Parts: sequence; C-alpha cells; structure tokens
Amino acid sequence: MSDNKIPYKTYLTEKEMPKTWLNLNAFMKSKHDPFLNPATGKPCTSEELEAVFCKECVKQELNFTDKEIEIPEGIRSFYKTFRPSPLVRAYFLEKALDTPAEIYYKFEGNNTSGSHKLNSAAAQAYYAKQQGLTSVTTETGAGQWGTALSMAAAFFGLNLDVFMVKVSSLQKPYRREVMRTYGANVIASPSDTTEAGRKILKEFPETGGSLGCAISEAVEKAVSTPGCRYVLGSVLDHVILYQSVIGLESKAVLDRLGVYPDTVIGCVGGGSNFGGLIAPYMADKLQGRNGTEFIGVEPASCPSMTRGKYAYDFCDRAKITPLAKMYTLGCGFMPSPNHSGGLRYHGMSPIVSKLYADGYMRVEAVEQSKVFEAAITFAKTEGILPAPESSHAIRVAIDEALKCKASGQKKSILFGLTGTGYFDLAAYKQYNDGTMTDIIPTDKDLEKGFASIPKM
Amino acid sequence: MSDNKIPYKTYLTEKEMPKTWLNLNAFMKSKHDPFLNPATGKPCTSEELEAVFCKECVKQELNFTDKEIEIPEGIRSFYKTFRPSPLVRAYFLEKALDTPAEIYYKFEGNNTSGSHKLNSAAAQAYYAKQQGLTSVTTETGAGQWGTALSMAAAFFGLNLDVFMVKVSSLQKPYRREVMRTYGANVIASPSDTTEAGRKILKEFPETGGSLGCAISEAVEKAVSTPGCRYVLGSVLDHVILYQSVIGLESKAVLDRLGVYPDTVIGCVGGGSNFGGLIAPYMADKLQGRNGTEFIGVEPASCPSMTRGKYAYDFCDRAKITPLAKMYTLGCGFMPSPNHSGGLRYHGMSPIVSKLYADGYMRVEAVEQSKVFEAAITFAKTEGILPAPESSHAIRVAIDEALKCKASGQKKSILFGLTGTGYFDLAAYKQYNDGTMTDIIPTDKDLEKGFASIPKM
Repeated sequence: MSDNKIPYKTYLTEKEMPKTWLNLNAFMKSKHDPFLNPATGKPCTSEELEAVFCKECVKQELNFTDKEIEIPEGIRSFYKTFRPSPLVRAYFLEKALDTPAEIYYKFEGNNTSGSHKLNSAAAQAYYAKQQGLTSVTTETGAGQWGTALSMAAAFFGLNLDVFMVKVSSLQKPYRREVMRTYGANVIASPSDTTEAGRKILKEFPETGGSLGCAISEAVEKAVSTPGCRYVLGSVLDHVILYQSVIGLESKAVLDRLGVYPDTVIGCVGGGSNFGGLIAPYMADKLQGRNGTEFIGVEPASCPSMTRGKYAYDFCDRAKITPLAKMYTLGCGFMPSPNHSGGLRYHGMSPIVSKLYADGYMRVEAVEQSKVFEAAITFAKTEGILPAPESSHAIRVAIDEALKCKASGQKKSILFGLTGTGYFDLAAYKQYNDGTMTDIIPTDKDLEKGFASIPKM
Repeated sequence: MSDNKIPYKTYLTEKEMPKTWLNLNAFMKSKHDPFLNPATGKPCTSEELEAVFCKECVKQELNFTDKEIEIPEGIRSFYKTFRPSPLVRAYFLEKALDTPAEIYYKFEGNNTSGSHKLNSAAAQAYYAKQQGLTSVTTETGAGQWGTALSMAAAFFGLNLDVFMVKVSSLQKPYRREVMRTYGANVIASPSDTTEAGRKILKEFPETGGSLGCAISEAVEKAVSTPGCRYVLGSVLDHVILYQSVIGLESKAVLDRLGVYPDTVIGCVGGGSNFGGLIAPYMADKLQGRNGTEFIGVEPASCPSMTRGKYAYDFCDRAKITPLAKMYTLGCGFMPSPNHSGGLRYHGMSPIVSKLYADGYMRVEAVEQSKVFEAAITFAKTEGILPAPESSHAIRVAIDEALKCKASGQKKSILFGLTGTGYFDLAAYKQYNDGTMTDIIPTDKDLEKGFASIPKM
C-alpha cells in the first residue's frame, strides 16, 4: 500500500454517525421550480401533496430554508442496523490501473436490500408510522428499493404493496421472494389491480413495464386506500435529503483523513444517491468554497440528462403525478430492457436537474458493455461484486483515474458504490457469455418520448 | 436500547486487526488422533499430504505446539478488503424476544462470497501462490466456499476448478455465475471429468451429489494436474486455524466492552466456522479459565455428531482421502437434499469431534422448519437475511435466550452469523409457501451409512 497513513477502510463509530441530514435546497441561491398541479397549473400545496405522501415528508419536501434537519432517534436507531457504511481507499484498484490518482468509494451495499435505498426507506417508513398510517405503497425497478422498503416496513410494523417493474420481476424472481420474506405484497407492473395498470396493458399488452408505469399504479393504490400513503424511492427532494447521510458520513471520514475530493462521481437514475453523496461537497461549492468537479453517470440507453429536455413533465407514465421541472426523455419514453433497472427512468431529480442546468456538474452517458467491463475489473481487485447501476460510477471513476495516469495528476476521486450485484447475475451471465448488446435510442426514439412532454 | 454503554455494532480499526491466528491444537492436552494413510494404516506423513495440499498448509496442519501463528502481510492485506467484520449486540432481537439475555453475534457475511469462508480461502490461495503453483481445485456445496475461493484465486492470480454439488448448482444457478465472473471454471458434481465422478454416476445415476462426492473429484483433479493442489473449505485443522480470526476479532471487541460470553453458539457442517469462532474462548476453557458453554448446532437431516459414530472414516465418498478420526455418519451416507448445503456433510472436523468427545461442548440437532422460523424473526428485527446454515445458530441462540426469559437469567450469548441467505431464496420461497418439509433420517438410513465406515 502506497500510503500508510490512510487505512484501506474506515468506519465512523456509532457516536460519530450524523445526527442531522443536510438540505441542499437551503444552499441553492437559485431554487428549482416548484411542483405544479397539472389540473390548475399552479404550484402544489402541502394539502395536495399530503394526499399522496406522508405529512412530515411533505414538510421537508417544501423546506428551502433549514440547512440541517434533525434525524429522529427512531430513524437513527434503525440506521444502526446497517450503518455506518465503510469509506474505502481503493488501493487495489489503483494498483491495477497503475494510476497516481487516489480513489475512494463509499460502499452502501452492506445491507440485505443491497443498496443505499434503505437510508430513505428507513425515514419514510418511520414518518408513516408516526403519522398513524397502517400501510404504504411503492414501485420498484431492480428491486433494491422495494427490498429496502420491505425491510423498513417490517421493522416499523407497516403493511406494504410493492409494484415491481415486470421485466425486473422476470429477470429477478428472487428479489420478489426477499420482499415477501419481509412480509411485503409484490405485484408485477403493469397489473390489472389498478386503473392505470389496466390502461397501460390495453395500450401496450406486451410491455415489460417501467418505473413510470409502476409509480402510476402505486400512487393510485395509495390515494384510494384509507390509512395509506405512497412512498417514492428517488427523485424527490426529501429523498435526497435522507440520502445526504451518505455524503455526510463520507465527508466526516475524509475530513479526518485530510482528504478533500477533486472529483465526486455517482450514477444517476432518479438522482437520489448522487444528490446524497455530493450534498456536503456541493453545499461547499454553492458557497464558493471548492473547485470540486461533480460527475453524474447515466446509461446511454436511457440518457435523461445528456439527451433529455429540461422541461416540466409528469413523474409517471399515466400522468397522474404532479409536474416536475426536470431533465426528461418524456413520461411516455419506454426505455429498452437493459439491466440497470434502477437507472431506467425517464426523468431526473429536480435538484440534480437544476444543478446541471446551472453548470455545477457534468454528466456522462456510458454504454452497458463498458460498464460491465469496469465492474469485473473492480470485482477482481476490490473483491465486491458491484450492481450494474453502481458500475456506471466505477466506469467513469476508472476513466478519470486513467486520465490521471496519462497526465500524471494525483487527483482525489470519490465515487458512490451504491450497491451489490448479487441479484444481477443474469446480466453478468450475458456479459460472461459475450451476448450482451448496447441498445442506444435513436433520435427518432427520443422524439417519440419528447412528444409526451406536456405543452406548457 | 437497554444499555447505552454497549454500541449496537462495533468494528475493530485496521490497526487492531489480529496479526496472528490462534492454534487450538496447541492448547489441547489430549490431541486428536492423526490422519491415517488408508494404504498403510499409519499416520500420514508431510510428504503424503503435500501431494494433495499446499506445503505451508500441511506444515500448519501438523503443528500441535505453536499457540500463535503469524498471519502473513499478503493475507492481512487481502483481509482488509472484507474485514474486520462487525460484532453486533442484537438489541432488536432481544427486545422482540423480551429476554433478559444479552445476545451478540459476529457477522461474517459482509463480503461477496456471503460467508466466513473467505477467511480461509484467502490464506490457502496466498500460500498456493507463494509455493509457485498455477492452479487449485476445490468442491463447494451451497456455493459460498466456491465463491470465496474464486475471489481469492482472482485476487492472487490462480486458476481454479470448482466441483459444485449438483443439487446446489441446480438450486443456485447464479452462484455458478458469481464464480465464473471471478474467473473460475465450475463443474457440476458428480461429473464425467474424473474417475471418481464417473464411478459414482454409474452407481447412482440420479444422485444430486454430496460434498463427499465433490471432494473426491476435486482431489483426483488436483493430484493428476501438474502445478495444482487441492484446497478444502472446512474440516481440516489448518482451516480452523485460519477461521480463528473470527473468534479473535470477537474477543478483542467483547474484551473492550467488558463482556465475557456465558454461551457460544455456532452451526456445524464441517466445523470450521464453529472452531474458529470458539477458538480463544475454548483455549481459555482448556486452561480451566472459564465455565463458558459451547453449543454446536447441526441439521436434524444430517446429524453427524448427535447420531453419528466417533470413528476413523474417509473424508470423501470415493475413499481416496486419508482417514480421519471424527464423528461421522459414514462416508457412504447420502444426506437428503435439504437446503443447508453447507451443513450436508457426513463427517466433522477432528478438532471439534475431539472437543465433543472430551465433553468440552454440546451439540443440538434442529429441524429445518424451526430454523427458517428463527431466520425470519431475525431478518425482521435485525435486518439481515441470514443463510439457512447460519440460522441453525440463530435458532439455538433464540432458544437459549427464551430459556433465560423463563429463568430470569441475564446470560451473555455469542453466536456466529456466518453468512447471508441472498442465494437461498428458493428455500425461503418453500418456507413462505408453506411447502417446506423436515426430512430426518431413520435409524435404518443411518445403519446404511455406518456400514460404509471402514473396519479398523
């Protein structure tokens, strides 16, 4: 190991774990545009949002002033079962790449859900229980978010219906079983249990579904069931707030090690892990305190930011959610069934979208086969089999480290290793068999999606 | 939480990680009987063992004097990628059971192999590489050991053939894919690639295989291939030596917390995780320094210790390995295809067998359905989805804690949570569907197995 002062892996102690989340919205001088009620064209009120989401989540969603928000004891208690997560200096990857760059990653996959999603599930399930609700609904793509919410619902004692994107439920039958083991009711989406599902099935009987479809179904079920609310795994500001625990823990460790990253890299699907990882460093940047570069990485098969439009759009396919100002491929965009289910979403977090629009970050779109190549290099050197989603960040971290090798620069690179690939072996098999293909939408495919963006 | 002084989860720092393994053999006044060469009836010599195993492993296998053995820097370096493992105070499980007992567990599943097996794989792959070998072979049951060795072989740069018990390879197709991703060649056993495999297939064409069969094939392949040796995942003394890192880390943490366990519980298949977990506490007991109770837990479907014989027997079905004095159901015993693949072995570690024979520990046999019931209680309270193997220990830890509830005793219970159940969802599905059955061998079944024990 090249530097004896920095350990391979560092955990905060229980006492050092964050007691507050960081609210990026309070740091942004230029705020993102508000959610709009599609019926009125006016900003959504608390009351309207509270019909869908938990009260406390709505309060936090609309909080643009408090820089820090306290993490309740009940949530911190559950966090202890799977946090702190390790901050790792990737010595073995550095050596394999022969790079002068220092590579760090924050590994969020050390829990049964296999990803960072549990950070937000914990908070939302806790607040639902506190509000006296008896059940929640949600959607899930790759299944990591559904598993996370199943675990949190079991812990806090809530019933749960999970609408799982059909193609993922076929690719990952055992994901369904994990959720069931924790007591959740899992429904393949589109389903015939909701109006939204029936409508989509009628129009596209052969569809493998999408996160957008599944969201429509879960929201409909929540608003039509007493004592029930809908819980979203990404995109929204309060989700990014809860995910800030990733960045806060990372910064607490790196500060202690005397490291300030030159580059922070995360994959972006709905934007929550990325928003959470970058939070404290982006807060510094918004205050003019650093020149850190932030890179979001998306799949070339679903290029919401690199090829999308910055516009008001629905968060779901059936157009029943509020309108969000975000980078979008159009709520009608049907992504190809690539393997990164968690990145297969037409839109993007309004916070991340705004930061991108305002030039605080850049985005790279990468092809699947290159992503798996990076994943396997990582697995063989650092030991962990990464999720395909996370491997998008690995791909660009490796590329940045190789640029350092070429230039001789000794940059500090931090990336988010959001999860494990234990339920993605069908995809690894395709790669190992040499049968994996890269499916990139044509301009014509995109035009079809853009046509579904509402005219404002 | 009932006791603020003890954190929920404790990790050693990198500097505090053990630098030596603990050699239980050196503490046992009454040593276990030596391995015998079946051809001569005499104790195996180093030379004979070195034809099968790595040189350094044989040296350690035959070391009955050194209490501590240094962990080489190369192994400690790889250990850093997945160790230290957390020592957890199971506050949430305690609360659910409403027990006055303090329950602690050492969680070894936080790595891609999903279990403690990587501790031993790391050491054996390192020593093979140091010896200048180019390849190794092994067998795997549930697939955790094979995955572990695949990871270690990739890290140290060795080729690897894994003979995987056929029934497990059918139940867990994705396990094969993980191993392949790390570069291993995986063969379902019995196979037609070895003499041993062909012979077993001829006699039992429909067999789902067993660890014993797979061992025969892997050993044959190793001894017939230049620059190749065989690596065993359990049973042998040097494997237990490497697994002592589990117990040493546990004791380092518990000592700091001021806790000395009254009861130490682990599942037993070949005995390596149990032997490793108990090592420092058993060393104390062998020196008369504690009254700690040690409980090994085995499946009622493969009751090597509770219903086996203490006798010299072959370690494999094809009778090509040395003879070991151990508790055994007979090398010809064909266990039922229950789900705890890792505990489906006819024999038991000679060290653990000797400790049991000499009264230093007791053993409980538990039924599968009771094991899964405990697993789900654990998952819902502590968050982690446990491996069926590990859940045998959870079952008895819960039973012991409930006894404390009845008696009012405030015992400290430590158990080994050896791994995760992410690749055992087919078994969980059976339990969730209510279709799981308990298959317990009849006395007649056992008699058949005992008939295969060689007459000495």
